[in-house]
Amino acid sequence: MEELRKTKSSTLCRVFELLCTTDDGRRGRLTTRHGIIETPFFLPVATAGAMRGLSLGDLHDLQAQALLSNTYHLHLHPGEDVIAAAGGLHGFINWQKPILTDSGGYQIFSLRGLRKITDRSVEFRSHTDGKKHILGPQEATQIQHQLGSDIVMCFDECPPSTASRREIEKAVDRTLQWAKICKETHEKLSAPSLLFGIIQGGLHADLRKKCAEELIALDFDGYAIGGLAVGENEDEMLGVLREVTPLLPVEKPRYLMGVGVRHQLQACVALGIDMFDCVLPMRIARHGTILLSNGSEMRITNAEFKHAHEPIDEHSPSDLSRTHLKSYLHHLFRVHERYAEAIACKQNLGVTLKTMQNLRASIEMRK
Amino acid sequence: MEELRKTKSSTLCRVFELLCTTDDGRRGRLTTRHGIIETPFFLPVATAGAMRGLSLGDLHDLQAQALLSNTYHLHLHPGEDVIAAAGGLHGFINWQKPILTDSGGYQIFSLRGLRKITDRSVEFRSHTDGKKHILGPQEATQIQHQLGSDIVMCFDECPPSTASRREIEKAVDRTLQWAKICKETHEKLSAPSLLFGIIQGGLHADLRKKCAEELIALDFDGYAIGGLAVGENEDEMLGVLREVTPLLPVEKPRYLMGVGVRHQLQACVALGIDMFDCVLPMRIARHGTILLSNGSEMRITNAEFKHAHEPIDEHSPSDLSRTHLKSYLHHLFRVHERYAEAIACKQNLGVTLKTMQNLRASIEMRK
Repeated sequence: MEELRKTKSSTLCRVFELLCTTDDGRRGRLTTRHGIIETPFFLPVATAGAMRGLSLGDLHDLQAQALLSNTYHLHLHPGEDVIAAAGGLHGFINWQKPILTDSGGYQIFSLRGLRKITDRSVEFRSHTDGKKHILGPQEATQIQHQLGSDIVMCFDECPPSTASRREIEKAVDRTLQWAKICKETHEKLSAPSLLFGIIQGGLHADLRKKCAEELIALDFDGYAIGGLAVGENEDEMLGVLREVTPLLPVEKPRYLMGVGVRHQLQACVALGIDMFDCVLPMRIARHGTILLSNGSEMRITNAEFKHAHEPIDEHSPSDLSRTHLKSYLHHLFRVHERYAEAIACKQNLGVTLKTMQNLRASIEMRK
Repeated sequence: MEELRKTKSSTLCRVFELLCTTDDGRRGRLTTRHGIIETPFFLPVATAGAMRGLSLGDLHDLQAQALLSNTYHLHLHPGEDVIAAAGGLHGFINWQKPILTDSGGYQIFSLRGLRKITDRSVEFRSHTDGKKHILGPQEATQIQHQLGSDIVMCFDECPPSTASRREIEKAVDRTLQWAKICKETHEKLSAPSLLFGIIQGGLHADLRKKCAEELIALDFDGYAIGGLAVGENEDEMLGVLREVTPLLPVEKPRYLMGVGVRHQLQACVALGIDMFDCVLPMRIARHGTILLSNGSEMRITNAEFKHAHEPIDEHSPSDLSRTHLKSYLHHLFRVHERYAEAIACKQNLGVTLKTMQNLRASIEMRK
């Protein structure tokens, strides 16, 4: 049964409306209290409430539909109390579209050697000042509510890609146990935000299946697939999706965490994924790899571009790339001018968002 | 006699039109082949063809009338040949308003121990890769023409603030000798750009007078006062201006190099200065000192701003400061997010440009 929810205007509407399903993927509409998101879509990552090289105006220019921010980082600085007093994350960063908050599980489990795990929480030291903090499923859910998140993520254990089957098994059990606590906490807080469960299980089909089924039994607003794009190869990643997506309820959105390479976006959408986030397009931008709207890419720091007096990408969704020259961007990278980063980041994010726009259009055409 | 020049449209017009002179300063109009600049004005400094934290769109937003770029930096990277092939600096950086290029003298004479000076040129090693370069009055003028500069600056010797009278005397002689070569070179190239002489002489009234008079005899399109804001105190700086400006022809623009502190801008305009440039407003912005449009400033990194959930500057010329909160900017600085720099730089440049706008308006009111 599809979940029904009251929106601000007090009309009843579905959280997720599936418009059509084709061989190219699913086309849908996700309703949050800060507006509707057309799916499939990509979430730009504003970890601590901002993106390197981009203004919020740039995100609007590029028609970003939603942002991702991180509980771990915002809990450490400036703290959820400060953000709540500013009217939540939307008021604090001045972004009125939907915001999804990652729970912080992934970040804390990346702090190797810095943590003590119990059944209720994780004790860790901040990567910035070494201060001790405790975060668990209850705390992570409460914090996300204080941040005013539209899409709250369950606090999960994300094991490293090198983990043994036994470690992954334990992580699945803990993730399931914590998912229950997240759900209970979320329901008590009764805010109009959505809560997504995260499926772990590494590359083990049976563990993924177990995790998916038990999360589905708990009934979340959406299901995320975590623990991928952490070192496995592409076939392995797609293999997991082929196992997991058929298990998921068609009427709920599916979110593949940490994936944002263009051809992978296409392949994953075809397998039924509706949501993505990834820092990769921005990271490679900062190091001079420019994604072009024709599907190719260029290393703008290569000597050949020193004399390339032509627009960076004539058909780019980014105004900067339509007007600035390749030779200019090459120069800015060579002399370490920060404007290089601004141009490159806007280009790579623009092209990634455009890829999703094109995928949505191609699904509609197939209908 | 006022100099006359042919503009593109082949009508005759004055390079500099003095609209009025009051106790608050001079109000004028400087015509270049890339448009008219209302004076007095401030030049944002895009040393290597870009500004840290700001896009060219931001400069348009803030109504910047012209840009300053640097011959020394652009000669090293990417080289004037590359820029000329891109259609000059205007084409290369995609800025269609006037550009003034500094000659590189100041930069080269800042490379202590790295140079060999002769009567015709300076041999130096690049600060980036240590390669040997030669730049003299002829080369610097030719390069600025290749860059397509609207306002070409003479190649001068700028002695350090600690220099002895004897050193300054020598620098004045060399500056005058080089100014002749710059003028000859500029005239041979017969481009529609303007050429400004630079007055040196440290804090010595007689040397300043000598330098000014001999430059005026050579007849330049404008006169710059160099070698100030290099360590002397404010009274000493204003003292030099009080000696020098009365010597300058009223019908030519006067450019005070390297000054951009708000109250100094006002004082210097009152003494008859028409043009300024300075990196200081941007440098302090990057370190968290925010100039406010009410004339005060704030150290946004101070703890008191952690909970200041109010706009950075409600009456700011920068959209970012009107919409973003002080608490948000404080947070961005604390977690080293680059967007902090973008907000702070746009604010400080905006307020500096607005100061000039207000000074122009107040002179007009006095008329």
